[in-house]
Amino acid sequence: MIQRSAQFLKNMSSRRTVRDFSDKPVNQVIIESCIKTAATAPSGANCQPWHFSVVSDQTVKSRIRREAEEVEAQFYANESTQKWVKDLEHLGTTPSKPFLEKAPYLIVIFSQLCSYSENGQKTAHYYVTESVGIATGMLISALHLSGLVTLTYTLQVCGF
Amino acid sequence: MIQRSAQFLKNMSSRRTVRDFSDKPVNQVIIESCIKTAATAPSGANCQPWHFSVVSDQTVKSRIRREAEEVEAQFYANESTQKWVKDLEHLGTTPSKPFLEKAPYLIVIFSQLCSYSENGQKTAHYYVTESVGIATGMLISALHLSGLVTLTYTLQVCGF
Repeated sequence: MIQRSAQFLKNMSSRRTVRDFSDKPVNQVIIESCIKTAATAPSGANCQPWHFSVVSDQTVKSRIRREAEEVEAQFYANESTQKWVKDLEHLGTTPSKPFLEKAPYLIVIFSQLCSYSENGQKTAHYYVTESVGIATGMLISALHLSGLVTLTYTLQVCGF
Repeated sequence: MIQRSAQFLKNMSSRRTVRDFSDKPVNQVIIESCIKTAATAPSGANCQPWHFSVVSDQTVKSRIRREAEEVEAQFYANESTQKWVKDLEHLGTTPSKPFLEKAPYLIVIFSQLCSYSENGQKTAHYYVTESVGIATGMLISALHLSGLVTLTYTLQVCGF
């Protein structure tokens, strides 16, 4: 067990968040396996409050880039977010997000705050952000261990 | 890559959340490696807003169990949480939490909402719950792949 934990640590320590992607095609079967791995995560009351959308269509990716960059431009220019922008300085990020267009896949992760049964009855979900975070940790691990690179990108205002 | 992603899915699919633990000792080196793996997680502005405390002392574990069960008894009895209690019914949980005393290790996961520099200057942290969730996903994966079992336990009110 000591050896297995050390080996996994070694494998995971080589992971880096990257912002420059190759546009070389990646077999979708790999992405599907990794999302299935994410879906094995534990969740509050086992409600599995996640939804993963895989985007590979060039037109959709371009639209996401365009609309995200509009939001980002406001974020970087807005007076109220200057402290945050300063805290990002060491990462060298800017409002320009070419990776949204270049990466072969965008995996859009949604949190489901509640669910509805067939007869319209609402069911609350518990510890949604924590649960989706755990699933995302497993997703990132799966993609890395498959030999792919990832960027965990969070758009400040998701209004589109 | 297809094979690697399928193999990781297979390995992770055998994970189950368990509530009954053996009290057989586990080498602490394994726990340390798994926490180091968790700490490789990406985080908002790379602020690494987590703190992991490992509890193995029997007296401390017993106190945590006792105080947790007091909170749980209120949760299960309180009128305002009856819907939630009902949503947990299929899991068969009760206010009794013997695993808090029996498991060789409790890993207590703290979120750091901000940090302070040596001269007392406050730095905000970003996407804290998401980041700690991702790290926790990697922790659970590491422990499982090392051959250990886990329970992700969240106490509703953490007042002690």
